[in-house]
Amino acid sequence: ANQTDRVVMANSKYEYVKDFERPDPLLPNTWVIIRIDGHGFHRFSKVHEFEKPNDARALNLMNAAAKAVMSELSDVVMAYGDSDEYSFLLSKLCSLYDRRESKLITTFASLFTSYYLYYWSDHFPTPKPLYPPSFDGRAVLYPSDQNLRDYFSWRQADCHINNLYNTTNWALILKGGMTERDAERELMGSRAADKHEILFSRFGINYNNEPEMYKKGTVMVREPVKDEENGDAPSLLQEHGATMGEPERPKSNRQLKKEAKKQAKKEERQVKTVVRVYHCDVIRDEFWDARPWILDDED
Amino acid sequence: ANQTDRVVMANSKYEYVKDFERPDPLLPNTWVIIRIDGHGFHRFSKVHEFEKPNDARALNLMNAAAKAVMSELSDVVMAYGDSDEYSFLLSKLCSLYDRRESKLITTFASLFTSYYLYYWSDHFPTPKPLYPPSFDGRAVLYPSDQNLRDYFSWRQADCHINNLYNTTNWALILKGGMTERDAERELMGSRAADKHEILFSRFGINYNNEPEMYKKGTVMVREPVKDEENGDAPSLLQEHGATMGEPERPKSNRQLKKEAKKQAKKEERQVKTVVRVYHCDVIRDEFWDARPWILDDED
Amino acid sequence: ANQTDRVVMANSKYEYVKDFERPDPLLPNTWVIIRIDGHGFHRFSKVHEFEKPNDARALNLMNAAAKAVMSELSDVVMAYGDSDEYSFLLSKLCSLYDRRESKLITTFASLFTSYYLYYWSDHFPTPKPLYPPSFDGRAVLYPSDQNLRDYFSWRQADCHINNLYNTTNWALILKGGMTERDAERELMGSRAADKHEILFSRFGINYNNEPEMYKKGTVMVREPVKDEENGDAPSLLQEHGATMGEPERPKSNRQLKKEAKKQAKKEERQVKTVVRVYHCDVIRDEFWDARPWILDDED
Amino acid sequence: ANQTDRVVMANSKYEYVKDFERPDPLLPNTWVIIRIDGHGFHRFSKVHEFEKPNDARALNLMNAAAKAVMSELSDVVMAYGDSDEYSFLLSKLCSLYDRRESKLITTFASLFTSYYLYYWSDHFPTPKPLYPPSFDGRAVLYPSDQNLRDYFSWRQADCHINNLYNTTNWALILKGGMTERDAERELMGSRAADKHEILFSRFGINYNNEPEMYKKGTVMVREPVKDEENGDAPSLLQEHGATMGEPERPKSNRQLKKEAKKQAKKEERQVKTVVRVYHCDVIRDEFWDARPWILDDED
Repeated sequence: ANQTDRVVMANSKYEYVKDFERPDPLLPNTWVIIRIDGHGFHRFSKVHEFEKPNDARALNLMNAAAKAVMSELSDVVMAYGDSDEYSFLLSKLCSLYDRRESKLITTFASLFTSYYLYYWSDHFPTPKPLYPPSFDGRAVLYPSDQNLRDYFSWRQADCHINNLYNTTNWALILKGGMTERDAERELMGSRAADKHEILFSRFGINYNNEPEMYKKGTVMVREPVKDEENGDAPSLLQEHGATMGEPERPKSNRQLKKEAKKQAKKEERQVKTVVRVYHCDVIRDEFWDARPWILDDED
Repeated sequence: ANQTDRVVMANSKYEYVKDFERPDPLLPNTWVIIRIDGHGFHRFSKVHEFEKPNDARALNLMNAAAKAVMSELSDVVMAYGDSDEYSFLLSKLCSLYDRRESKLITTFASLFTSYYLYYWSDHFPTPKPLYPPSFDGRAVLYPSDQNLRDYFSWRQADCHINNLYNTTNWALILKGGMTERDAERELMGSRAADKHEILFSRFGINYNNEPEMYKKGTVMVREPVKDEENGDAPSLLQEHGATMGEPERPKSNRQLKKEAKKQAKKEERQVKTVVRVYHCDVIRDEFWDARPWILDDED
Repeated sequence: ANQTDRVVMANSKYEYVKDFERPDPLLPNTWVIIRIDGHGFHRFSKVHEFEKPNDARALNLMNAAAKAVMSELSDVVMAYGDSDEYSFLLSKLCSLYDRRESKLITTFASLFTSYYLYYWSDHFPTPKPLYPPSFDGRAVLYPSDQNLRDYFSWRQADCHINNLYNTTNWALILKGGMTERDAERELMGSRAADKHEILFSRFGINYNNEPEMYKKGTVMVREPVKDEENGDAPSLLQEHGATMGEPERPKSNRQLKKEAKKQAKKEERQVKTVVRVYHCDVIRDEFWDARPWILDDED
Repeated sequence: ANQTDRVVMANSKYEYVKDFERPDPLLPNTWVIIRIDGHGFHRFSKVHEFEKPNDARALNLMNAAAKAVMSELSDVVMAYGDSDEYSFLLSKLCSLYDRRESKLITTFASLFTSYYLYYWSDHFPTPKPLYPPSFDGRAVLYPSDQNLRDYFSWRQADCHINNLYNTTNWALILKGGMTERDAERELMGSRAADKHEILFSRFGINYNNEPEMYKKGTVMVREPVKDEENGDAPSLLQEHGATMGEPERPKSNRQLKKEAKKQAKKEERQVKTVVRVYHCDVIRDEFWDARPWILDDED
């Protein structure tokens, strides 16, 4: 036997190390939120001179990356983002990657990052950032529709609170000429009404007229389209024959027949869909009532 | 109370959804391997016309991304990569991100992806790939030094087996004019010696003379340098005042003093290090005996 | 410093080993089933000469232990048992032991075992069994009411199938004089109708007249009682001032006041309850419709 | 089709609920400690009038239960107990129940409880306690030998500290006539030397002469015996043909042959063993040096 046969034998001897991998399936029939968070974006936004309190280019880039992720991964039902974070909702019945947690969260973090860089030059005047940004991610499970709605309400309320603070804070600094420290002191303990008042009386800003994207964040929903309309165009990966699904394994004839049948059935009932982008309220009932298919995913 | 005060109150009402996040600390005092794997790279390599059986540009790009990850994250002791995968070793005592599994694996997957795109144009003639690639990741724990060495042996033996197969397979196709199918048939059931023989007798290729990077993969080690030598230059993030560590939180004076003391001590004993790149055997003892500090990380 | 001061100091040095304990909270707002299973009861029933196919004493003992567990742990909403297993349902909102999985499943397994031995002599003619029995346990989470009902349906259908098989099998052996092997062969591939036929034509047994406890298993439900009725008497532990709740920690005055208030409120709205025992169908709607409070535990 | 065939079909429809069970294998090649803790034993010891500060009967019963657990489960290498807790050590290579965490911890908690009740009447004058006691349990993993030794050191140092406190406290109460409250005040802030002094000067007690079982707790080790000696007698379960191993599944001929071979090999090298009981120090090296087989369980 030569060197490589010894290697093959050795390899079977080493393969026991695979037993140290732990299975990590997420609980079935539960809403899955995958939230992506920018790492050190306080610094990243400074180095790249993001406008304060909001940089439309940076937010649009986040949205472009998120929309692309939704296009590639059709299991994503809805997404919500603001600042340097994005939450993706997977259906309760989603079985992507057999619901393996590690596989899911790393894939979302990686694909989002990849699109963020890929589309950078569409939004900023340089071909790439000064250093590569990164995002972490996590999965959180929500058993009930109410829990899920409360999750999105939590993120949107958070967006609102932060944006009012930031808008006032940066008005004091940029328009009022205060130091960062003085602005912080001025706002300490202030209530919402106080901030509205500061904005209006000192700077003539009516907070209610601020752009919806800043006040409400960005909501993306996969929506069915009517017969005469077009669904979403193929995604960038699909255009090149690639896909985010499971890698292909060789299949038996029987499997292939079975799948062809299944596919035909699926296409029959399949509705063309399109990802639509909003900057609307997701706390009140209107949003959900108008899109019953989001929560109608009963088992 | 105005709209935003209601929002603040609402938010505290929604905050219970945080309780659905689960803690996921990795077992202390255990070697942590974080392995990154290219998603659908069979297709990606076709679309981007990677040379077969090995594309030096693609491997060099993988290595550049891996080296950058090691530069940013000093907790990485060593790394091993071949094809479209890379394994990073965190010390048993590593406490990065409090050893939170989700945070660790998503950060590695994201940062690796980010550098892969960032450095793409240094290795390929286009500013960016035709579509954005992605990588998944997972953490595996190894309690003993032997388990850990067997892990790296497993990956390197796997590299060897695949490379001998691929080298022979693509010789049959590219030089022998076979179809992919015929080549597959020819190799079915063949042993290592048979493949060596095919390469040598039909194509005049002595497999042993193939490049070490293809046969052995790539090994990166963080190594201490002598006083007169320079350690690694600051990483790309460090150059811009950024870091992959935990985000800063405001600290008390007492904390600050304590940390200053700790930092001083650390610097005192701190050794300058450099990340070195090899294409050497990691299965036999020589590699490990020559670098006792890798496994000497006792608790 | 003497020996014990050294011990105290040493102990603080060793306490780091606590960091190896992992947190294991069960997902909130999800139904929790804790299922207890007899270990090696095939052998245990032989050694103790349980009657075949069903031993009423053994089943009554299982039921007595289960009922006692429900009396001690008021978080148990309902239970279902047959043969040597019992499933306990904890409310979606249950916060017993902060939903720590290890604590919950070991406590249920231990308390059930303890009562099984404690009540042994009430059901069998010996003061204790010939050797101590044991039970293992596990927790399974069910997000939706339908999943939960399907769980109980699964266990009850399983009971039905096994009991029809066992009843026929033991009729062939005990009344038909077959060997165990011949009986097994006779029943191989037989359908339900065949078993009914064997029982009726050969042994004059109408399966439908078999005892409900054997055919349906045992269902226990915590039910509210009317004002004039009495609730359940105090449990055996309560009679002795003990409880299965969390161990008491010393409390501040403020805490004590807060709790007194909470307790008063609780008692105000508290309904007296009683654990009722049935051998009824839990697959169809009737059972659930008649007890809306079981599934009405909305969040 | 009749009722039961419908049940069979229904059952296959319900079986999906099994998919909600999560795999929970413990990391291989890691020491496993399973610690059992009495629930509410403060109350239990009061109700059953345990002697203060130590009740030899109660401790002997704990030890009897622990020894029986070790006899039934030969994977337990060593155990340490004091007060109402016991820690069992499973070998790094142990594969009992495929290292499934839930199965392991519930089985230990249940079997320990079962023996505690089973042997109650051997140690107390009543056939059974006034109410059934219960124990919870948990598993903790220790990767290195040092971590493992530190675990046992932690428990033994804890035993020492508590016993010195309790011995002094109850001397003040029972011999010194103090109230519990006054004794507590007297000891607040006292150092070890102060407690020794109180014991000696006021009550003539030399703490060092107190029974070793109280000061050191109880250590049990499975030890090999010499050829001429007898190993442990069969356990209570074994006497009745029962066992704590996995339930038997039907096996193929090939499997049976393979196992017979394996079994023969095992018996060849198998050493007779006996569980020995000590009240000795496990913090210093002597204990471990004298029993090299405990930590020699290398992979």
